[in-house]
Amino acid sequence: MQQQRIAIIGGVAAGPAAAAEAARVDPNADVVLFEQGEHISYSACEMPHYAAGGMANHRDLILFEPAEFERAKGVTVRTRHRVEAILPDRNRLVVRRLTDGEVSHERFDKFILATGARSRIPEMRGVGADGVYPVRRLDDLIHLRAKLDREEVKHAVILGGGYIGLEMAEALRRRGIRVSIVEPAGGLMNRHIDDALRPFIHTRLREHGVALRLEAPVAIETDRQGRLKAVRTDRGELIYSDVVLLCTGIVPNTDLATAAGVRLGESGAVACDESMRTNLPNVWVCGDVCEVTRMIDGAKINLPLSPVAFRTARVAARNAARKGRGAPERFHGVVVASAVKVFGLEVATVGLRMQEAIDAGFDCFDIVVKHVSRGSSAPESAEIHVRLVAEHRTGRLLGGEIIGNDGAAMRVNVLVPILRQRGTVFDLMDLDLVYNPPVSPARDVLTLAASAAAKEVSHRMRNPRW
Amino acid sequence: MQQQRIAIIGGVAAGPAAAAEAARVDPNADVVLFEQGEHISYSACEMPHYAAGGMANHRDLILFEPAEFERAKGVTVRTRHRVEAILPDRNRLVVRRLTDGEVSHERFDKFILATGARSRIPEMRGVGADGVYPVRRLDDLIHLRAKLDREEVKHAVILGGGYIGLEMAEALRRRGIRVSIVEPAGGLMNRHIDDALRPFIHTRLREHGVALRLEAPVAIETDRQGRLKAVRTDRGELIYSDVVLLCTGIVPNTDLATAAGVRLGESGAVACDESMRTNLPNVWVCGDVCEVTRMIDGAKINLPLSPVAFRTARVAARNAARKGRGAPERFHGVVVASAVKVFGLEVATVGLRMQEAIDAGFDCFDIVVKHVSRGSSAPESAEIHVRLVAEHRTGRLLGGEIIGNDGAAMRVNVLVPILRQRGTVFDLMDLDLVYNPPVSPARDVLTLAASAAAKEVSHRMRNPRW
Repeated sequence: MQQQRIAIIGGVAAGPAAAAEAARVDPNADVVLFEQGEHISYSACEMPHYAAGGMANHRDLILFEPAEFERAKGVTVRTRHRVEAILPDRNRLVVRRLTDGEVSHERFDKFILATGARSRIPEMRGVGADGVYPVRRLDDLIHLRAKLDREEVKHAVILGGGYIGLEMAEALRRRGIRVSIVEPAGGLMNRHIDDALRPFIHTRLREHGVALRLEAPVAIETDRQGRLKAVRTDRGELIYSDVVLLCTGIVPNTDLATAAGVRLGESGAVACDESMRTNLPNVWVCGDVCEVTRMIDGAKINLPLSPVAFRTARVAARNAARKGRGAPERFHGVVVASAVKVFGLEVATVGLRMQEAIDAGFDCFDIVVKHVSRGSSAPESAEIHVRLVAEHRTGRLLGGEIIGNDGAAMRVNVLVPILRQRGTVFDLMDLDLVYNPPVSPARDVLTLAASAAAKEVSHRMRNPRW
Repeated sequence: MQQQRIAIIGGVAAGPAAAAEAARVDPNADVVLFEQGEHISYSACEMPHYAAGGMANHRDLILFEPAEFERAKGVTVRTRHRVEAILPDRNRLVVRRLTDGEVSHERFDKFILATGARSRIPEMRGVGADGVYPVRRLDDLIHLRAKLDREEVKHAVILGGGYIGLEMAEALRRRGIRVSIVEPAGGLMNRHIDDALRPFIHTRLREHGVALRLEAPVAIETDRQGRLKAVRTDRGELIYSDVVLLCTGIVPNTDLATAAGVRLGESGAVACDESMRTNLPNVWVCGDVCEVTRMIDGAKINLPLSPVAFRTARVAARNAARKGRGAPERFHGVVVASAVKVFGLEVATVGLRMQEAIDAGFDCFDIVVKHVSRGSSAPESAEIHVRLVAEHRTGRLLGGEIIGNDGAAMRVNVLVPILRQRGTVFDLMDLDLVYNPPVSPARDVLTLAASAAAKEVSHRMRNPRW
């Protein structure tokens, strides 16, 4: 049987994972990983720590150097190679070697798209100025860190108050830099968490000296030499600063896919089935560029998180590399669990926000409960706030948010299996979670919140018109 | 309609919870709580902390003084009253007032047994000597603490290396007392955890200066005045000591129940149905004296843990106090989750141990995996060991053990919903748990362990005779 050739396009997280898995499944295959940048296989989630100065060198972020990866995984790695076109029906890839510009055509049997996502650069004057940094790729962070190490940076303005914006705010504060976050009226993390618990985030950031400017940025002002001067907001204010970080979200890199005839989904990311196969029979997709199913309501969403990248990569690669025996591997979807810890405050969310649940057609309500993290004799014990969203009629759990210190975020993991199994607040209330004063309180905040929600549901059941 | 009278017998944890709930459900009922001791409603789980000197006074353990409880909950409390007999078919209680010995007969419509459990006192010479303390009731701890505060206690011997034995070992070490634990060959926590992870417990205890004597105690030697001298072991050794703590397990207090014609189950505790009703129509049961269903295999077990006490109390009381409208409240059972933290080491278990699973008829295997608790940049990150027990044929998860520092124990809670829903290691492997380096690693030790177990199951599926 002829050796199959598998091309993987994109080398940050999903790409290397897919390449390694494909080579594992079919050790005879010729697996080639293409990456236009210099680096592959790095831990993007540790980049704020690197920016803060917590690592000596950017190499500490890299899991495998290309040569190492080739040896360890039995894969060919081509960095500094940009894939310019995929021609799936002709089994061809058009590749440009960036070192000398040479373009070549190569034959492949199968293609795995792992082209990831890029910073969403806001459309405003001055975003290209010196001193303005997107925060996405390793190169972005290398440039930023060099600037911070080299020059005296006194004040940084961060555009965007999502996960990355908050993590970068902490990283820069650790270096003693004054930080302002500019985020329009919705407030910090407004794409992740509803209003009820948001004040805790605002307070924590302010306590650590971060200025919150709940205004929309409209332009970046520069001097005559084109150097950054200030951020102008919709209130006409000028926030003078030495660096500006663009933490304004990301968009999937779908150009290559659409040019190849690969269909996108409603979310704007690449559509695929549960086997991670696109509409084209020899093209699979994984990582930040793909769509996944939100298991709670079946919606197709783009969820650019590292664990999703690794899991979709594994499924895509196994199905691409296998030769048709048995049932394909499936990726069933996600319940959208994520966490961040900033200045000691842990924020974790899972499932649907209230508005998402309403949009999905649920008649739902929310409830907020606070409790301690451990028994009263444990000195580390701290307050934890939980917010649950549930369906009124059935008590079905739809989402949860947890904020606090001391193990708040990891509690969200208990909700994951319940959400995946379409469980209710009654199921959650009944869980026999561990109790030991140095570890946890007699009743956990999760089961307390579930009890409160269950009361609401039972009341509604008895009083249907209420 | 005539006012109903409800008697609750036993005042530590389940009793007060049941009394309060009964009064809530039927505010017109005359609810009377009987307790032979002086105290009700105290936190037994915080007692090691009290013994260590972490609380000024035993009153810090008490949630409600009797008079307070009466006012807050609308319940009559009779401390220092011993119930000598229940005559359910005649709706009578025989009660002795311990202050003056007077015996009275009282009419009640309904009875809730919450008589709890008592120390299992080993049958050996000298257990009644001065300086030998059971560790169960608040009075036991008050006496022990008084001794420790009053006299110079240099060396303590703890008989029994279960949860309580370990917690008391830490409490006494905090006071600077030399501690030896005497536990026969199975080793520490041998009723809770299988052999694989036990060495971590032994090592941690030894690192903190606790001497482990894996021998069976055979007698307590006293001097001519009947004062404690030493513990004699089956190897003929004498361990000289100033105090001996009996942490040798507990047995349910069933005498009152059996004398009343209430049936016991196989476990030796009081049998009941899911509504917590015994074989007698007007007698309910809750807390450490009752049986509960182990949901994994349907076995009836006695599980004397505080959260079980509170949950069974609530169900028993609601069903006892209600007047026949609607379906009774149900207690579906437990998956036996518990945790302890000793000298910083967290140990948590859930579900069936290997031998329990084999005894229950499962063809099962186990797997041990270790991983870090957080991302590599988090300074608190520590090693966590997980052991899973699963069914070979189906991959059904049967049990789990977790040992480590830094949030090890709380991870067991993620297994609780999976075990309750009869989920598999495939379900566990698929969970999209949170990832953020300061909070958790890219792949959690739980999903890593589940992946390893899933491989084993898949291999077996493909190679049935293997």
